[in-house]
Amino acid sequence: VRPYLAVDWGTSNVRAWRIGASGAPETSGEWPLGVGRLSPGEAPAVFENIIRPTLDGADIPALLCGMIGSTLGWREAPYRTCPATADDLLDALIRVTSDVAIVPGLRATGVTSAPEVMRGEETQLIGWRALHPEAEPAIICLPGTHSKWAQMQGAQIARFQTAMTGELYELLATKSILRANTTEEDGDAFLAGVEAAGDGGALSTRLFSARTRIVAAGADPRGAASYLSGLLIGAEIAAMIQSFAHTGAPIALVGAPSLTNRYSRALKHRGFASVEEDGARAVISGLSALVMRGAFDGSG
Amino acid sequence: VRPYLAVDWGTSNVRAWRIGASGAPETSGEWPLGVGRLSPGEAPAVFENIIRPTLDGADIPALLCGMIGSTLGWREAPYRTCPATADDLLDALIRVTSDVAIVPGLRATGVTSAPEVMRGEETQLIGWRALHPEAEPAIICLPGTHSKWAQMQGAQIARFQTAMTGELYELLATKSILRANTTEEDGDAFLAGVEAAGDGGALSTRLFSARTRIVAAGADPRGAASYLSGLLIGAEIAAMIQSFAHTGAPIALVGAPSLTNRYSRALKHRGFASVEEDGARAVISGLSALVMRGAFDGSG
Repeated sequence: VRPYLAVDWGTSNVRAWRIGASGAPETSGEWPLGVGRLSPGEAPAVFENIIRPTLDGADIPALLCGMIGSTLGWREAPYRTCPATADDLLDALIRVTSDVAIVPGLRATGVTSAPEVMRGEETQLIGWRALHPEAEPAIICLPGTHSKWAQMQGAQIARFQTAMTGELYELLATKSILRANTTEEDGDAFLAGVEAAGDGGALSTRLFSARTRIVAAGADPRGAASYLSGLLIGAEIAAMIQSFAHTGAPIALVGAPSLTNRYSRALKHRGFASVEEDGARAVISGLSALVMRGAFDGSG
Repeated sequence: VRPYLAVDWGTSNVRAWRIGASGAPETSGEWPLGVGRLSPGEAPAVFENIIRPTLDGADIPALLCGMIGSTLGWREAPYRTCPATADDLLDALIRVTSDVAIVPGLRATGVTSAPEVMRGEETQLIGWRALHPEAEPAIICLPGTHSKWAQMQGAQIARFQTAMTGELYELLATKSILRANTTEEDGDAFLAGVEAAGDGGALSTRLFSARTRIVAAGADPRGAASYLSGLLIGAEIAAMIQSFAHTGAPIALVGAPSLTNRYSRALKHRGFASVEEDGARAVISGLSALVMRGAFDGSG
């Protein structure tokens, strides 16, 4: 590919890489300068004064994805509607300077009448597809604060759905009656939680079991955080498997290895095969796919 | 009844009444001195030095229920197991002084392998039954931080189940991405939330709609708290209706009127009739029923 700067700019953090002609990252950086932490209008200066020089990226174009395309970011890149392909994202690319462009997010119809939205994950999805062109049909799970599950049909992102698993875990494990004194990993308690999630229904009832298993059934309180994590991830998996047409093909897990590993264990416990892919590799792959398809044609 | 002090002593607060020979409350008090706020061993002094004198309750016995019977309270009153009647509670009463006794809590088998527990609600349940001896069979909902739903068969508390609805609402409405800038009541947004709860499954997915309906579908952000409340209460109702054998008889709502009114509207929206009962009246009725059955026989 043409050398460029690949930037994944989220709510909390920004990660960026200088991609060389070989397509491999040559330099990289990560900053706690997500759009949720910037003043209005601050993004361009952060990019030009911090990100670009750190990556040795003068004179090359940059492709950005994530919340940087929201109203909180550099400039709003309106959502494209699912189903959508890499070319649809390319059509809706927002050029904010002569050599900086932002990938739009996607919207889809959710299980309620409210829409589903994503910013950044669409780039990981097309990146995952570029890395695995043969896998078909495919369910892809991107675990996180707000986990996204998506169905791809060929090169098309057909639909997707969000679960607030990471945020619920954080709130419940630190601020609720279920708060844990330790976050040490307990694999058995984790799987007990996955088991207790059942069909994913009655979640606010099942959550109470994280307390009663300790106060009334003698479980070790040191397993509390792992049990809670298993319960929430188990409920997410149960709901999503019901929602997506699962054909038996392995479910692709895309994200930080510590998190995809946890989901992989939960899926295995429920009888589902999975394959893991690093989230950073997927986002670079997605941005590079857009560059190869002409993201900078006619620019800079 | 014999005059006595009725005390509902929870985690956050304690409410107490002097019950006269007519069975009616003559004096009352409420203090932010729940067991979660007391030092170990402090409960007896709080009772004798604050509660008893305020209620003009020297020389009469006292019956206490709630978390005061937990390890954090005055003395642990071990759980009785469901099914249980008023007489079963009476058998397991804990006498902490010659004229002060504590009602035990109940445990039951929950939807997961973990047990269900309650302390205080068992007294409201037998109190509700004493007020409504004819209603049969009966599903009773006690909404709150940890809502309890119970099934009564005649005088027997057959089983019950907890939903952490109030606590989830508090966390999500104040500390999550769904936090609301206003808590003003919006009846339409509340019912939209009840509707969006669907069958109660996929709760962590449906919760995300509280955000997307605003950021991607133009809903008024002032309705955010009401929508969230409706969604959580709707999910609780859907799960509990599936869990309990609902015969079509009105569901009894026992608690603070502001809360039972909200549940009543949600139930009505889903096609279920309900009747409301004040929680304080139910707890007094339950304690008086135990006194009439001999809670203080042979004491004081």
